[in-house]
Formats: sequence, C-alpha cells, structure tokens
Amino acid sequence: RRFPTVADLAAQARRRTPRFAYDFVAGGVGDDHGLARNRQALDAVQIVPRYGIDLRGVSTETTLFGRGYALPVGVAPMGLAGLLWPDADEAIAAAAQRARIPYVMSTVANSSIERIARIAPDVFWYQLYSVPENDHAVSLDLIRRAQAAGAHALVLTMDVPVRSKRVRDVRNGLVVPFRPTLRTAWDVARAPLWALAMLRRGQPRFRNFEPYLGPEASTGDLAGFVYQKMTGPLTWESVARFRDAWRGPLVVKGILHPDDADKAVSLGADGILVSNHGGRQFDAAPAAIDALPPIEERVRGRATVLVDGAMVSGLDLLRARKRGAAAAFAGRAFLMAYAAAGADGLDHVVRLFTEEFRTALIQSGTPFHDPVS
Amino acid sequence: RRFPTVADLAAQARRRTPRFAYDFVAGGVGDDHGLARNRQALDAVQIVPRYGIDLRGVSTETTLFGRGYALPVGVAPMGLAGLLWPDADEAIAAAAQRARIPYVMSTVANSSIERIARIAPDVFWYQLYSVPENDHAVSLDLIRRAQAAGAHALVLTMDVPVRSKRVRDVRNGLVVPFRPTLRTAWDVARAPLWALAMLRRGQPRFRNFEPYLGPEASTGDLAGFVYQKMTGPLTWESVARFRDAWRGPLVVKGILHPDDADKAVSLGADGILVSNHGGRQFDAAPAAIDALPPIEERVRGRATVLVDGAMVSGLDLLRARKRGAAAAFAGRAFLMAYAAAGADGLDHVVRLFTEEFRTALIQSGTPFHDPVS
Amino acid sequence: RRFPTVADLAAQARRRTPRFAYDFVAGGVGDDHGLARNRQALDAVQIVPRYGIDLRGVSTETTLFGRGYALPVGVAPMGLAGLLWPDADEAIAAAAQRARIPYVMSTVANSSIERIARIAPDVFWYQLYSVPENDHAVSLDLIRRAQAAGAHALVLTMDVPVRSKRVRDVRNGLVVPFRPTLRTAWDVARAPLWALAMLRRGQPRFRNFEPYLGPEASTGDLAGFVYQKMTGPLTWESVARFRDAWRGPLVVKGILHPDDADKAVSLGADGILVSNHGGRQFDAAPAAIDALPPIEERVRGRATVLVDGAMVSGLDLLRARKRGAAAAFAGRAFLMAYAAAGADGLDHVVRLFTEEFRTALIQSGTPFHDPVS
Amino acid sequence: RRFPTVADLAAQARRRTPRFAYDFVAGGVGDDHGLARNRQALDAVQIVPRYGIDLRGVSTETTLFGRGYALPVGVAPMGLAGLLWPDADEAIAAAAQRARIPYVMSTVANSSIERIARIAPDVFWYQLYSVPENDHAVSLDLIRRAQAAGAHALVLTMDVPVRSKRVRDVRNGLVVPFRPTLRTAWDVARAPLWALAMLRRGQPRFRNFEPYLGPEASTGDLAGFVYQKMTGPLTWESVARFRDAWRGPLVVKGILHPDDADKAVSLGADGILVSNHGGRQFDAAPAAIDALPPIEERVRGRATVLVDGAMVSGLDLLRARKRGAAAAFAGRAFLMAYAAAGADGLDHVVRLFTEEFRTALIQSGTPFHDPVS
Ligand SMILES: Cc1cc2nc3c(=O)[nH]c(=O)nc-3n(C[C@H](O)[C@H](O)[C@H](O)COP(=O)(O)O)c2cc1C
Ligand SMILES: Cc1cc2nc3c(=O)[nH]c(=O)nc-3n(C[C@H](O)[C@H](O)[C@H](O)COP(=O)(O)O)c2cc1C
Ligand SMILES: Cc1cc2nc3c(=O)[nH]c(=O)nc-3n(C[C@H](O)[C@H](O)[C@H](O)COP(=O)(O)O)c2cc1C
Ligand SMILES: Cc1cc2nc3c(=O)[nH]c(=O)nc-3n(C[C@H](O)[C@H](O)[C@H](O)COP(=O)(O)O)c2cc1C
Repeated sequence: RRFPTVADLAAQARRRTPRFAYDFVAGGVGDDHGLARNRQALDAVQIVPRYGIDLRGVSTETTLFGRGYALPVGVAPMGLAGLLWPDADEAIAAAAQRARIPYVMSTVANSSIERIARIAPDVFWYQLYSVPENDHAVSLDLIRRAQAAGAHALVLTMDVPVRSKRVRDVRNGLVVPFRPTLRTAWDVARAPLWALAMLRRGQPRFRNFEPYLGPEASTGDLAGFVYQKMTGPLTWESVARFRDAWRGPLVVKGILHPDDADKAVSLGADGILVSNHGGRQFDAAPAAIDALPPIEERVRGRATVLVDGAMVSGLDLLRARKRGAAAAFAGRAFLMAYAAAGADGLDHVVRLFTEEFRTALIQSGTPFHDPVS
Repeated sequence: RRFPTVADLAAQARRRTPRFAYDFVAGGVGDDHGLARNRQALDAVQIVPRYGIDLRGVSTETTLFGRGYALPVGVAPMGLAGLLWPDADEAIAAAAQRARIPYVMSTVANSSIERIARIAPDVFWYQLYSVPENDHAVSLDLIRRAQAAGAHALVLTMDVPVRSKRVRDVRNGLVVPFRPTLRTAWDVARAPLWALAMLRRGQPRFRNFEPYLGPEASTGDLAGFVYQKMTGPLTWESVARFRDAWRGPLVVKGILHPDDADKAVSLGADGILVSNHGGRQFDAAPAAIDALPPIEERVRGRATVLVDGAMVSGLDLLRARKRGAAAAFAGRAFLMAYAAAGADGLDHVVRLFTEEFRTALIQSGTPFHDPVS
Repeated sequence: RRFPTVADLAAQARRRTPRFAYDFVAGGVGDDHGLARNRQALDAVQIVPRYGIDLRGVSTETTLFGRGYALPVGVAPMGLAGLLWPDADEAIAAAAQRARIPYVMSTVANSSIERIARIAPDVFWYQLYSVPENDHAVSLDLIRRAQAAGAHALVLTMDVPVRSKRVRDVRNGLVVPFRPTLRTAWDVARAPLWALAMLRRGQPRFRNFEPYLGPEASTGDLAGFVYQKMTGPLTWESVARFRDAWRGPLVVKGILHPDDADKAVSLGADGILVSNHGGRQFDAAPAAIDALPPIEERVRGRATVLVDGAMVSGLDLLRARKRGAAAAFAGRAFLMAYAAAGADGLDHVVRLFTEEFRTALIQSGTPFHDPVS
Repeated sequence: RRFPTVADLAAQARRRTPRFAYDFVAGGVGDDHGLARNRQALDAVQIVPRYGIDLRGVSTETTLFGRGYALPVGVAPMGLAGLLWPDADEAIAAAAQRARIPYVMSTVANSSIERIARIAPDVFWYQLYSVPENDHAVSLDLIRRAQAAGAHALVLTMDVPVRSKRVRDVRNGLVVPFRPTLRTAWDVARAPLWALAMLRRGQPRFRNFEPYLGPEASTGDLAGFVYQKMTGPLTWESVARFRDAWRGPLVVKGILHPDDADKAVSLGADGILVSNHGGRQFDAAPAAIDALPPIEERVRGRATVLVDGAMVSGLDLLRARKRGAAAAFAGRAFLMAYAAAGADGLDHVVRLFTEEFRTALIQSGTPFHDPVS
C-alpha cells in the first residue's frame, strides 16, 4: 500500500494542490498552538493494555442517537472543502454512505442539502451556521430543508462567534476579497491537475444559499452573502429556538467548558461535540481530548459526548473512547485522503480507520460496549 | 496584508537595520533565558472559551488611573530607541496619541519631555531613571518637567540597580565607548536606508539632559552624562521622595516579588507594572506573566496591576487580563513596527492589537469589565 | 575498540544490511512512540550513587529460577532474526552459551528447537507463540519438544493478540506476500555482503514448523503456515493448559498491567517479563521500565519479575534492577551486534554489558544481592 | 572584549586544540546525560529578584574554613589538564593566587605539590586520589607533603571507585595504552600551536609520583604507575585514617546522597563538595545543583557545603549560593580559558566571574552574608 498512514495521504495532497488551498485546510489560527496541542495531547494518552482475552469477534458497530453506524468515527463538517479538490463534499458523503459512518455536512459546503441527502441518505447529519437576518429566516429554512431531506442529526456549531485570523491565509492572500498574486499563480501552475479539475468543475460555490439569492447568483454573490450575512455568535437563545424547530437529535459542537456542556443539555441538546475547531478559531484553547473528560463526567447519562481534533488513526479513536467519547470525528484526514487519491483515497482512509481501530481494540484488550446514547 | 503578525514586522525590521542596532533591541541579558521564558509562559496560558453569548458590542475602552484609553495596551518605555530608527520616540508617541493608548516615555529617550508632551498630550506617561548626584537635583527636575508638561502618570523603574551585561551588545562592540569595527561598517553598509536616515537626522541624542549640560553639549557629552551620572538603584527612600514630589498617579515598574509590590503600595504607589524588563536585566528572573497572579492577589483593591514582556498579539493582551492585569504594555512590538514600516507600521500594529484583542475577547466569551484602578 | 557502544554497532549494522531488513528490526508500530518511550523512560531513571564502600569483589552471578547465569541480562526472543543476517539465531545462541546468559528462542526463529538446544544447552529458554488449530496440537507439540530438548524455562508471549501494523515494513513492501520493488532491489544492491550471505545460506526459514509440513515444505510454505495458522490471542485458558503441559519454570511475557501479572501468577506463572514488545505492538503502551514497579510490588515474593525494552548498556541493566527486575532482556542490541560484526560482535556486546554493569554497580555503590526467584 | 562568555572561550579552545584533547576535557561518561543535567538544572533555577535596596557596596569576600577568599568560586581539581595545553596547572594556580580564589590541585596534576605550593601559597588546596598499596604508604606521603607544603584544605574525592567509560575518549583512541591513529595525527596537524607547545614543553607528566619511581622514571612509567596503582574506592575507613593524618580542614568531594554527607561529617569532615564529577563518572547521577539542597539541610551548622558542575557565570555562582552552597567550584571554565588565551584568558575568566557575580548579587537584591564555615 502506498499510503500506510494519513500522514502519507496528507503529504500526497500537499504535492497535488496549490499551497494556498493546502494551507487553508491544514492551518490553524494564530501560531497554530491550539492545532499542535490537539496532536500532542493525543500522543500523550497512554493506554495500559490487558491481555489473555479473545476479542477477535469484537464488533465496532456504534449506535449514535438510536442509529447504527459501522465505526465510532464520522466526518466532521468542513466548509469550502471544494477549494482543496472539486466535489469534495459529495465524494466524501458518498464514501461515508458506503462505509456507514456519519457524514456531517457544513452549511458552507460546496454542495446542497438536497444533493447530499440523496448521496448519503443513511448517514447524513447537518451542521448549521446561522444567518441572523430577518429573525433567522434563512437559518430556520436551512433547518427545515435538512429535516425534509432526512438528516439524522442537527449540529449547531457554537465556537465561531467571530471570524478568526488564519495567518497562513493572510500570507497567501486567501482573504475576502480574494486577490490573486504572482505567487498564487505560481502555486496554481505547480498543481496542474488541480487547475484542470477546477477548470472543468468550476469554482466551488456555496450551493446551500442558491435558493435565497435567485437562480442567477454568481459564485461571488454567494461568497459575499456568506461573508456578510452569516455572522455573529450562535447564542443560547438561538439554540433554544433551533431546538424547538428541529425534531430529532441535536448536537452542540465546539464546546470546551463543562458549564457550557451543561447549559446545552439543559436546553435540550442530545449530544456534545467537544472540539476546538481543529485549532482554527482560538489559539489559546485547550486540546479537545483534554477538555473531554470533565465534560463527559458532567453530562454523563444525559447526553452523548463526541470529540474531534487531529484524529488520524484507529488508535486515536480508541483514545477518544477511553477518554469518554462515544465516537470521534475527523475532518482533515478525509479531505486530505480525497485530494490525495480521490474516491479510492476515501475508501482507503476508511479502511485504515477500520482496521487500525479493530487492531487497537483487540491489542489493548478493551471490550467494546457501545455507550448508551 | 504584508504583515499579518508582529513577527513579520520584526523580520522586516531585521532586514532594514544593521545587526548591532537590531540586536540591541531584540536581545536580552546573558543567555536570553529570561527573554525566552516570557514568551513560553505566555504560550502556555490556555484559556477555556465560553460560547453562546453575544459580545460583539464589547468595548475595549480601558480606564487607567481615572483616564480612558482605547485599548488595554500601552507603549513600554524604551531608551535609545532612536538607534533602531531615527525619531522612533516621536513617531511612536504620535501613533499612541492617534490610537489613544498610553505612551511611556523613557528618561533616556532620544526626544525631550516637552516635545513628547506636545506630540502626545492625552496619553503621555513619563518613566524616570534617577540621577542621584546633588541630592537628586536632576531627578527632581525631570519630575517637575514631566508634571509641568502634563504627564498623566510617573513610572519609576526599579529593576536596574546595576548595568546588566547584554552579550550580543558586547559581541557587536556596542559598549561604552562605542568602538566601530570592520563588521560594524559592513552591517551599516547592508542597511543603506538606515544609514541614510541616520545621516539626515543625526545620531540619537539623550535630549532630556540637554538643559543640564548647556547648549553646546555634544551627543557624546550627553551619552557620557547618562553613563556616568545615571547609576545606582532606585531605593525605597527615593520612591518615597519622588512620591512626595509627584502629584498624580505613580506606577512602580519592574516588580516581580509580591513583597516588593506591597512595599511600593505602602509607600503610595497607585500602580505596579510587573516586568522582568523584557529579559534584559536578570537572566534567572521568572516570566512576568507568571509573577503576575500572586502580585495581583496581594495588592488587589489597593493598586492597579499592569504587566509587560513579549506581548505581541491581542491574544497576549487577553492572557494578561485573565491573569489579573488591568492592561499590558509592549515595547519591542511597537519599535519593530516603526523600523519595519514607519508611521504606517505603527498604525498597523495598533490595528493588529485592536482587532486581535476584540476577536480574542469575543472568541473566548470573556465579558470585558474595566477593572477599578 | 571500534564499537564503544551498542549505538555504534547498530550504525554499522545499518550500513551492512538492506534498509527493509534493518527497518524490520529497528522499527516499532505506528509512529514509534512506544519505542521512543522505552528509551526516554530509561534515560529519565536517575540513581543517587553511594560512596565509601568497596564493591570491587562484587559478583554479577544471577540466579533465575534456580539456575545460575553470569549476568542479569538475557537475549529476548526474536522471530525472523535471520532476515537481518543469516544464521542469527544459532550465532546468538552460541554466544549466549559462551557467556552463560539466558537465550530465549522464538517460535518463529529461523532455527529449530533441537538445534538451539544442542548449541546452547545451559542457557536455552523457549518462547511460545501458539497455533490454536486442532485443539492446540502444534502448540503442545512445540512445548513437548522444548521440554525434551531441555529448555530451562517456557516463555508465553501474551502481547500479540493481533498482528500489529509496522509502518516502515509497509513502506518497504515487507508484507505478506512479499513484493520486491525497484527500491528493494536497490537496497539489496547497496548491501552486497548481505546479499552474498543470503545467497550462500538461503532465505531464512521458520524451521520449527518443518515437522508439521512434511520434508519438502518450501520456505514460502512455512511462511504461509505461520501467517495463517499462528494467529489469535494467547488466552488465560491456554496459559492454564500450557502450565499443565510444561514441567519447569513458566514465564509470562508482555505484561504491563499489575492485574494481568497477578492473574498470571495465580495461574502458576513463575516469572513475569514486563515488556511492551520493544514498541512493536501497541503505540500507546507505556514504557516497560515505568510499568515495572507496580507490577513488581504486586507479585513480590510470588514471582520473579523480568523486563525488556531498549536495554543497551550495563547502566540500563542497573536501572532495571533498581526498579525491581531480577534481570533484563535485550533483543536488538544482540541482533545488531551480530549483523555488525558476526560472532565477534556478539562477544563484544556481551563484554560491553558485563563491564558496564560491573562498573555501574561499583560506581553506584549498589550491593548486588541476587533476588530470590 | 572578544570573549564575553565562557562559551566563547571554550569555542576558541576547541579551535586551538586537537579533538582528542578537547573531548577529553569537555566530555562526560556514557551518553553525557549527567553532564547535560548539570547545565539544565542550573538554567532551571529561577530567582525572584528584590529591588529598592542599595547593594553596590557589597563585598564578595568569602570565608572558607577560616580563610578569606575574594569570591565564592574556586578551581576544581583536574587531572591531566596539561593535555589540553602545556603547564595548565601552574598557570591556573598562579591565576588563582592573583585572584585570591581557592585552587584545588589534583593528585594526577601535571605539576608537583611543592611547585604549586610555591606558586599559589595562599590559595592552595590539595585533592587526594589514594594509592592503596603498602598500606597506603604513598597516599599518606602525599598527605604529608601537602601538609608540609602548606595546603589549606585536603579534598578527598569519593566518586571514583572505578574507572568510568568515556565514550569520546574510546572513539578518539585516548585509552591506555595510547594508540595514535591516522585521525589523531590529522587532529594534531590541525592544531599546530598546540603541537609546538607540546614539543617545547614535553608531554604532560604525573609529577607528583616522581619521588616514588626514582629520578629516571619516564612519562610512560608515571602513567603506568597511576593506571595500575591508583585504583579502587576511597572507603570510609580510609577517610577516617586520612582524617587522622591531616591537620586542617578536610573536604569530602563527590557526594550526592545526604546519608553519605552525614557519614563524612560524622567522620570529621569539615566540608562537603557536592558534585557528580562534571558528569564524568556516572551517567545516571542527578545534577549536583539538585542534590545540593537536601545535603545542605542535613549537615547545616556542622559542615560547609560546596558544589561544582557546569558553573560558567557569576549568575551560576549566585544560584549555587541560593541553593545553599558557601561557594562553588569550576573546572572546565578555567581550563578552557587557559587553552583559549593563556594567562590573559585566566585573568579574563576571573574577571567575568567577579563582575557577573557582583552584578547578579546587586540585580537580585541578595545581601551577601558570608555563611559560617
Ligand atoms: C477546511 C476546514 C473547514 C471547516 N469548516 C467547518 C465548518 O464549516 N463548520 C464546522 O462546524 N467546523 C468546521 N471545521 C472544523 C471541523 O468540523 C473540525 O472541528 C476540525 O477540523 C477537526 O479537526 P481535524 O480536521 O484535525 O480532524 C472545518 C475544518 C476544516 C479543516
Ligand atoms: C530597546 C529597549 C530599551 C528599553 N529601555 C527601557 C527604559 O529606558 N526604561 C525602562 O523602564 N524600561 C526599558 N525597557 C524595558 C521595556 O520598558 C519593557 O519592560 C520590555 O521591553 C517589555 O518587553 P517587550 O519589549 O518584549 O514588549 C527597554 C526595552 C527595550 C527593548
Ligand atoms: C526483530 C524482532 C523480532 C521479535 N520477535 C519476537 C518474538 O518472536 N517473540 C516475542 O515474544 N518477542 C519478539 N520480539 C520482542 C522482543 O522479545 C523484545 O520484547 C523486544 O525486542 C525488547 O526490546 P529491544 O529489542 O529494544 O531490546 C521481537 C523483537 C524484534 C526486534
Ligand atoms: C579534565 C578533567 C579532569 C578532572 N580530574 C579530576 C581529578 O583529578 N580529581 C577530581 O576530584 N576531580 C576531577 N575532575 C572533576 C572536577 O573536579 C569537577 O568535579 C568537575 O569538572 C566540575 O564540573 P565543570 O568542569 O563543568 O566545572 C576533573 C574534571 C575534568 C573536566
């Protein structure tokens, strides 16, 4: 196998894509301390294995909010994924459907709720960034569409109260308005396959907003809408309102403080996705895996706890489970795999997670009891 | 933006200036451990963010000693700043005035109390190094002039009881008397814009002492005066005396021990500026940000606590606030910005601090209550 | 001497062997964190020396399970050692016999129980990987043969319930089935002495299984048998059964949890070999030397505790003893020595261990009381 | 000044001397962990400075065993110092005499007790390695000669119960018997000034043993005597005997355990020199500066505590004092200074220690009370 680890896939993705696109995905906020902390904290989780028992028959089947999935890992929501490689959202959703693992679609994906629902009917979750204007008219319509399309869970991302400053994006000129420079051109020239794919498929569009801007809305119009209208924090008031609007499992994402977890549960959340947004929002944030145990302790029995951040192996999934999560989510691992090797890359990364997680389970002697959710 | 971070500005400053000048500003004492500790300790300050609240309306207005400032950051006093780039003091003071943030003028600045007071009337603070000779005649006259010029606060720097050994300065020949070497010449040749600016504006002079040396005093005479007369520790006896002489807020700078903070307050200090002098005086000193909490606890309610050392981002300002400081000060960040890009650089660094601090506040969910001072 | 340390021997081994062979031996599982942890944890063991006593007459004679050995170090079992250099097993066994230190033969060695027993009659221990098929017919026969051949102790390796993923092996194509690539060929070309030796001696065969596959079994047949039949965990039930089948000292290897150690002893084990399998099975496993003290405390007086992992010097042996082990085992140190310099290399590494251990004992002022076993 | 720090002197020494000589001095035992620990532990000693007091009048005069010295630093004993540069012992002794700091002569120095006593009458201490043969006839004669020559203190080094293995020396062929190789020759060729000085002054001889081998003893005979006769631990029995034989202050060197310190004091020692022999004897030994506090606590009021290991600045001396030592000793700092710049280098390093220590004292606000000794 050419890609024995996710790191190999990421290295290949780096070779095939222009730097500004790769950096947009790989980078964090500020000095990337929050990003680095996620990985270091995972590496520091030691597990004392137990032997002498036979776990080969172990099933990794995972029940989340009453639905069965094949593995305790899902795809974390990623906006503008199409920048790294065209059609990323749909390809990843299809792979998740094949693999029977949750796929969380971002509001700012480059596909639409309706298309993803068709591609990934059994594993489709929807992540909302709200559009406060007009008393949340668009937000509520997005929820309505997700419900209509059959999304299993609604994920409310709390940790983007304000746009964060990604230093690499600024350096690369990847800011609004986008100003290509000589170096941008050079970067693109060095990634001819990417350029070709972009030419053929067109620039990534924020398709979820097409209904609200009329049929002729340009890619730039959609970007402008997102940039201008989709701002501000998701407040607890909104959480309460969206809870009312949504019939089904509600997950609150981006939580790091036990009090916030508690608050979310008291407002009716069914799940807490502990996350520092992959180190992309707040450089002083603790590692998600370190924030997890006190949160799990606080809401135990009342909500399902999930976690994301720097998950790149089956062993990481086991670490997440050992620290109290029912399942983990991964973002970059999937997107890099797709940019590296397309749909095959996606099936490969799923296989990596599956085999490695099974191996880690058996090796560690950890019996796999599906936690109540 | 060409300079997304202060590090980018410093890198540009390094390119534009001769090495001995850059090193003089960037370096610390001994092996730079105290310098490194400041940065490492800040990076280690994690903050668990809180979400679900709307802080977009947050004001960063900061009241210090009864006067309002735009942001909880000020310019720390820097002597011989003109060596890095001509007219640094006046340019920085003007920028501070535009930005409405405190500007602390050093006794050994390359401008005069009277000129700075005219340039920065609303934000002018004055930092005193004492001249013990003649029963502190010059020290007291400097205080008198600062008072007459309308300085808002007087800052007494305690942490220079003796000249420290800056290894890089010794290596670069930047000692008294200054002995240019072949390498010095080469350094200057590599920084032609700097050399030109120096030629046009003349060597930096310690202008505050011109009144005491008569109208014809040369630049060397002034340097000699500073080197010979401005020596020895600022004792508690002198603090008491200067307290009597000064009507207005008094800040004691360079404190790292709670007992010293207590002593200063008991002698009438209104503020404590916790600092290890940017790592320039004592290589075994703890990081300022680590020394801060016990000091704040000791003098809480009796004095305003400030801090400086390695502050380069709005997130650092938030860290300072979280650890108990009413405001932070930055030295090198401003000076590097000026050497990198002149007045524009200064406005830019203020913008960086402002935007990043606002972002950090909102992102962290920290409501901003102006601490009593 | 050309090789003052084991690191020098390993460097030489690296030069003389193809990369895939060297990596197979040197590498660990996943990201090599468990491997690195072993070394770092040993380096962190400080020992406060005691002086003023005369220990020059100290004997390093070590009694294990009633038999005397020259030094508290033995050779850990290593499968497929013949890949690094032909005839490694027999050469190392002979060196162990000369040196009077325990030699643990692996089930998947490239020699046979009967040959090793003849070469190393006084120091022969046998390590079992079980073949569950036919109610453990082969496993029990291997035990019978080891008993018949006069093995002193039987070692049951618990920590391979599943095949682990060695990333370097995957990268090097060292997987089943083995697929040589251009790079493999190039690697071999760069190690002509190795290639010659391989040509002369033939590919390494899993000789212990020849009796079960008939006289004409090819090297590939034997590999296939091992790959397909020797799978699955060694369960506590099997431990109990093998305990019944084996008359003599029984050691359980690969234990990291005190409860597992306790379980093994309750089932009749005489010794516990604390090990994380040289970092080759579970990347999140703690360092063996760190797992040792609580295990020793738990089974003290009931079983002899042994340890392995990254032992490369006499000082490491002292560290193992200070942490509670009666003796330590080393794997790679011996194999690298052989690949570096043949039988001379083996005698040399024994001399290094002997002299350094004696020196460390005397230097540290640690009297050497042979622990009861 | 060309050498602002001891590191600059060491770098120059490295340039002027052959590698085997430099390595012999700079290196430690094993993997140099004990060596590195000394430096890291010193760097980790933070000191919270106190301000507002005037310590400019501070005297650094240090009383040790009733005699006054100029500074709390002395020269640690170094054997075969003449290998780094001819006449090192006598030059360093002379510099110590000029500077009024203790000079501890090694038994295996390349000068004689009588010559050093003449060169450094006021600061001469003598360090004994014992020669057990003939009921310590030579040991006792060395003590007698030191007494007759007027040595102020006798230092018994406890931490060489056995020869240690210095890996770099083995690599460089610096073993007994010395076998020059091509590389040795090349090393010497690259250090022509060193070679010339050696030619002029002759190879370094262990002059203290000339009386015992007769007038015609060759350099090799003396080395052989040292190698063969000067072996084995210095036992507590010998300490008691040497205590009886010596009238004057007795210092026991190389102690790291409080119980050993206690034992030494109970046998009549006046001083304890806490040391891990500069990392040259036991790689697992703790840093001397870390071992110091519990030892000082144990013998406080009963003995004077001294420390050595990696002392290279006046700040390090302050650290030693803060941790409880009456004075510190430095070895390599002096020897490197001599190899770098001869007698001037020695005066320079004394000046560095003096100025830096004064500066550190004043800067830290530490009043200097000479501890009772
Ligand atoms: C390119 C990219 C875009 C992202 N967009 C979103 C988003 O639209 N909504 C959201 O809730 N999180 C978003 N995230 C955060 C991820 O959902 C997730 O929290 C994070 O990436 C997990 O870390 P990992 O990528 O290291 O696995 C994004 C992350 C990346 C890398
Ligand atoms: C070039 C330079 C000159 C300085 N001169 C003075 C001074 O004259 N008076 C003073 O109180 N502090 C002086 N300081 C210390 C600063 O006020 C401040 O404590 C320190 O620089 C803060 O760290 P930062 O530069 O990393 O922000 C100086 C610092 C620098 C870098
Ligand atoms: C090449 C190689 C093969 C191994 N094969 C076996 C084996 O067949 N059975 C076993 O119990 N352990 C096996 N091990 C693990 C060793 O017995 C031992 O636990 C480990 O190597 C100790 O670490 P060290 O090599 O750093 O000394 C093997 C190790 C290596 C390096
Ligand atoms: C080249 C060299 C020779 C030494 N010889 C002796 C010796 O003969 N007797 C002794 O007690 N210590 C000896 N030591 C140890 C020193 O006395 C001292 O403990 C150590 O060097 C202190 O560390 P420093 O060199 O880093 O300052 C020697 C050290 C060196 C570097």
